Amino acid sequence: MLDYWNEYPKIQENLIQVKKLISQRLVINNKSIEEAITKFSSTGGKMIRPALFFLFADFGEKKQQEQLIKVAASLELLHSATLVHDDIIDDSPTRRGMPSVQSRFGKDVAVYTGDFMYTSYFELLAECMSETPFLLKNAQAMKKVLQGELTQMTCTFNPDQSINDYLRNINGKTAELIRLSCQEGAYFGGSDKKLQARAKRIGSAIGLAFQVYDDILNFSLELGDEQKPILTDVRQGIFTLPLLIARDNCPKVVRPYLEQPENLSQKELIQLAFYVDNFDGITGALKFARKLTNKALNEIQELPDGDNKEILKKVATQLLERSY
Amino acid sequence: MLDYWNEYPKIQENLIQVKKLISQRLVINNKSIEEAITKFSSTGGKMIRPALFFLFADFGEKKQQEQLIKVAASLELLHSATLVHDDIIDDSPTRRGMPSVQSRFGKDVAVYTGDFMYTSYFELLAECMSETPFLLKNAQAMKKVLQGELTQMTCTFNPDQSINDYLRNINGKTAELIRLSCQEGAYFGGSDKKLQARAKRIGSAIGLAFQVYDDILNFSLELGDEQKPILTDVRQGIFTLPLLIARDNCPKVVRPYLEQPENLSQKELIQLAFYVDNFDGITGALKFARKLTNKALNEIQELPDGDNKEILKKVATQLLERSY
Repeated sequence: MLDYWNEYPKIQENLIQVKKLISQRLVINNKSIEEAITKFSSTGGKMIRPALFFLFADFGEKKQQEQLIKVAASLELLHSATLVHDDIIDDSPTRRGMPSVQSRFGKDVAVYTGDFMYTSYFELLAECMSETPFLLKNAQAMKKVLQGELTQMTCTFNPDQSINDYLRNINGKTAELIRLSCQEGAYFGGSDKKLQARAKRIGSAIGLAFQVYDDILNFSLELGDEQKPILTDVRQGIFTLPLLIARDNCPKVVRPYLEQPENLSQKELIQLAFYVDNFDGITGALKFARKLTNKALNEIQELPDGDNKEILKKVATQLLERSY
Repeated sequence: MLDYWNEYPKIQENLIQVKKLISQRLVINNKSIEEAITKFSSTGGKMIRPALFFLFADFGEKKQQEQLIKVAASLELLHSATLVHDDIIDDSPTRRGMPSVQSRFGKDVAVYTGDFMYTSYFELLAECMSETPFLLKNAQAMKKVLQGELTQMTCTFNPDQSINDYLRNINGKTAELIRLSCQEGAYFGGSDKKLQARAKRIGSAIGLAFQVYDDILNFSLELGDEQKPILTDVRQGIFTLPLLIARDNCPKVVRPYLEQPENLSQKELIQLAFYVDNFDGITGALKFARKLTNKALNEIQELPDGDNKEILKKVATQLLERSY
């Protein structure tokens, strides 16, 4: 998936180094787990968090390459560990288009695989940032990510959860780590406090928008193929922004679907997707996401001029707008 | 279970403070997990790791009480987190005489409960030891504990595993954290390097002996009541020292039992327990554990004289010998 960065050879080169470091760290004396980790890494995602980290690091002047690689690797490792454990909770059959660790190797292996990633993450932090305020910030971020997941778990199958509940959940489970990535980039690159604060705000907006777009995808792209499972989130009791907007716009029609979503037939799900679109769920969520994207782009505009600013602008747009 | 320390009011007082700090840190926005954690903590164990930590801290002179409480709490939290996740792997119905987190609240809650304990552990370390070499030592210890668990997982149901495999497993999964507790006690109490090294060796011996005695218990105490599940480890494919010694002494009789231990009847298990005793499995393991206990006691003898040395001697003996 690093092809995604073909247009940006400098980022790509850094990400290759991060990937290499992660593979070196994840060597372990257990074949199942080693296989699980290797499969997981080789089908790796776009490495958005380390990529944003490097983009922000580029604004500074005090760069120590070895430290940057380690910090970037720690971000990706923390993200991967949470994914592996989330898949246990969600009973996810797939991740990144491949069978998830838990579906392929069982929940037991998945528990230890995630734990092992946490220990490697923690070891990296101890090595590269023990004397900075970011050690504590990492511990707190990890807690916030987990609390986001937990709040989401509490909201699951609750047909009356509010849009605010949803925003609080995604602020923890997705935005926190993207925010940290941007902020750490500015800090470890050697930028001043003002730029660090701006990086944090940009990360917040990108993180929230990224999750909202992702949630919209669950309602749009999957339609069309009658065989394909659709509205997977809804069936698991995870109610996201498009659905909540549609429910608020026309509770009488939409709310009944949220009462026992696990029992909805394929036909009813298609009907629900239609209602979500019809009652402005998609357009409302898109409007919200675009507002966040613009907020991020406006803040990026205020960054010092240069190639990296232009790249960041392009990357943010490309990352967020996707196929819309 | 803090009654265990009734004879040692100073340790007990410290442990009460540790428990209080842990409860303060484990407040969370999810009812199931909060309930799981509260139940788990209130049925807490003897808190052996923090207790050993305080005993060793007492040899030093540069003591900062607040820091000591935090370090001690971090040790107990790391231990608790590993227990909660281990119970998922082992499918344990009980822990500390109560239903385990996973059996009571499900594997999903158990995954996040353990993760949440890890984040609180990590946050404590960031607060109290970021500028010491023990941050990295903690990361490495966490890795070793996990690797011990993983090696044990690899050895599970292997009738030909060696006694050395067993020792390597328990050196990671049990001894590592007890070793760290003693060593951190010496360090954070302000003792010199020589005493720190001695504390580490004492912790090693106590940790290994502790696990061996625990494994012997699985073969002895549970006999007698025909209804009670016996040899629970064996049925889960976990082969410990008494069994491995008996197997090596008389492979022809003992080894066949290790081929499909999950299918052994109650009668066959009783028979196996008899063989383990008969072929010197119990006496052999006891001899091994006593050698380690003596090693610990001899090293303790070399510590500076004083009340705390006498208490440590008594505690180590009491902890290890139990009902033998």
